[in-house]
Amino acid sequence: MIVLFTDFGTTGPYVGQMKSVLCQRAPSTPVIDLMHDAPAFDPQAAAYLLAAMVAEFPSESVFLCVVDPGVGSQRKPMMARIDSRWFVGPDNGLFDAVVQHALDQTGIEWWEITWRPERLSASFHGRDLFAPVAAMLANGEAPPGRAVDVPLDRIREWPGDLEKIIYIDHFGNAMTGVRASRFDSRQKVIVGGQYLCRASTFSDVPAGQGFWYENSNGLVELAVNQGRADEFFQLNVGDAISFQAR
Amino acid sequence: MIVLFTDFGTTGPYVGQMKSVLCQRAPSTPVIDLMHDAPAFDPQAAAYLLAAMVAEFPSESVFLCVVDPGVGSQRKPMMARIDSRWFVGPDNGLFDAVVQHALDQTGIEWWEITWRPERLSASFHGRDLFAPVAAMLANGEAPPGRAVDVPLDRIREWPGDLEKIIYIDHFGNAMTGVRASRFDSRQKVIVGGQYLCRASTFSDVPAGQGFWYENSNGLVELAVNQGRADEFFQLNVGDAISFQAR
Amino acid sequence: MIVLFTDFGTTGPYVGQMKSVLCQRAPSTPVIDLMHDAPAFDPQAAAYLLAAMVAEFPSESVFLCVVDPGVGSQRKPMMARIDSRWFVGPDNGLFDAVVQHALDQTGIEWWEITWRPERLSASFHGRDLFAPVAAMLANGEAPPGRAVDVPLDRIREWPGDLEKIIYIDHFGNAMTGVRASRFDSRQKVIVGGQYLCRASTFSDVPAGQGFWYENSNGLVELAVNQGRADEFFQLNVGDAISFQAR
Repeated sequence: MIVLFTDFGTTGPYVGQMKSVLCQRAPSTPVIDLMHDAPAFDPQAAAYLLAAMVAEFPSESVFLCVVDPGVGSQRKPMMARIDSRWFVGPDNGLFDAVVQHALDQTGIEWWEITWRPERLSASFHGRDLFAPVAAMLANGEAPPGRAVDVPLDRIREWPGDLEKIIYIDHFGNAMTGVRASRFDSRQKVIVGGQYLCRASTFSDVPAGQGFWYENSNGLVELAVNQGRADEFFQLNVGDAISFQAR
Repeated sequence: MIVLFTDFGTTGPYVGQMKSVLCQRAPSTPVIDLMHDAPAFDPQAAAYLLAAMVAEFPSESVFLCVVDPGVGSQRKPMMARIDSRWFVGPDNGLFDAVVQHALDQTGIEWWEITWRPERLSASFHGRDLFAPVAAMLANGEAPPGRAVDVPLDRIREWPGDLEKIIYIDHFGNAMTGVRASRFDSRQKVIVGGQYLCRASTFSDVPAGQGFWYENSNGLVELAVNQGRADEFFQLNVGDAISFQAR
Repeated sequence: MIVLFTDFGTTGPYVGQMKSVLCQRAPSTPVIDLMHDAPAFDPQAAAYLLAAMVAEFPSESVFLCVVDPGVGSQRKPMMARIDSRWFVGPDNGLFDAVVQHALDQTGIEWWEITWRPERLSASFHGRDLFAPVAAMLANGEAPPGRAVDVPLDRIREWPGDLEKIIYIDHFGNAMTGVRASRFDSRQKVIVGGQYLCRASTFSDVPAGQGFWYENSNGLVELAVNQGRADEFFQLNVGDAISFQAR
């Protein structure tokens, strides 16, 4: 399975052009569009979002991930193998939270991609470089690159959980980079000076009331029953949250 | 064929996560995204929209439908078999218009889903419960539940056609829940105090003029040639329409 | 491979209904969503956009293209074979730029579609007429129509490159209908009285600065590093651009 995680948006030709390459090079591998609205220009928020979702995918899945504000610059293209899954994309921190949350931290492998296509556009490495490499890995070929050390110093600079809003969904719910299992269910979340109690799910609170809950990916999420939390609490991606002391 | 009909939107990870489950559990069954912008929080409007579209899908298709404002509440998960097709989703009326329009009303079967996954999130039954059940049905397994009576009393409370706007599309056209075959082509539609004549299609009227026509799903639809009916007539989902007497 | 290029948008049931037909009639052919937000009501802008993208698809690909403001009018449905690829859609100029850019201009074939389905809706030829024909061609059947002359007189009226903005993407970048290879890299683009220099890619200029570059499809594209060119330069599809004399 090849899993796409990008900030390309659902409009435009970019996703289709990338899928055309995958279809030509790995025709028997199914492709899943996990997200195409990952936080643009924000590899850190995208990293914590991705890390919350990888566990449900089978081993040998290939994650083709492009949140790449530095395309065309000196950032390196990379591959990694983490907990029996493959990751392909820019070496800008996008996979660092996956490493932090990995079950098997000692078995992680990291490569710089040294393979280059005949034609490499300056702005669309997703189609020209990362998609062919993802297809090679899905086909069982050896990683077309050079093994390098896992960048542990960079990875350790990031927190285990990110106390920020990392994504606002179609319904106006605000995901944070904090795993709900880390907190006591009686602790309130503080955001913009307001205190939110925990509920199990939407129907546990009256219509129009705000709350936090453990979302389906295990993250702390801020929501309003039958309302939009982003508008109700004036929330944006990047806003800091905190937890009331126990 | 598994057919997806949800209000998840085209952004976010929800559709992809559901498809990942389908791909793992029913890898040889094609999946069609019919709609992911069904009217949110409005199972009745969604029900009439769905009912207008099922006939063109082959027998044994499995409709995986999630418009589910009551997720996590006491509403039951269900399966039904109607006119040789399968339906899986919340038992909140979403399939009631399909029942009303069924060719074979005596052969309908209805089940409460009693199967439960190892991990059932409070908020995402589409991924955790309905998708695995849809995969089982697509694989030819027996419905994993308990046969119950078709809720005919509830179903009969709803009209055969819904004289409301049930969907506004990308072009600004407004679909109603009324089958065009029920009306005389000389009858005008009344909406917001305005009277619209029927046309066969867009190019039958001058640019900028409003009209109603039988859309490609057999429903009465309000439109403006090369314009947006929603803006021109100030239309919203839920607005009532009526027909001028013959 | 069947490649979809439409103005249907990513919402609503239209794309799904068309794919259901393809899945039933050509079940073993992969389907790629190239674009569903081609410029609506503007077959000329759509034509230059399509022409820039066909070369990367394999021979025998079938392009199913619907930008069709005249659906239901007298415009004819057509098929063409250009450079070993198939094209199906309305005969409104949508494929004329593909013809202009063809490598083998003498080998082009053109047909009027004479096949008709049992049920042809007035407004949705994409589902009822063009999708079945695309499936027939993908299955290797003979073109179900009548060979006609290539409309060279109409095609020659259009310029080789279109000095207009033809598409604004998710990031706010503005594509033009001009192939970058036609211009000197020192020439500035003039748009709305402003002069833009060329850069290789985004990271070549400071954040917030505008420039033009050769995009991944070989077209001149106007952009702002880490900003939105459409807002920064007040750009809309259809706006004229020009090039400073050498």
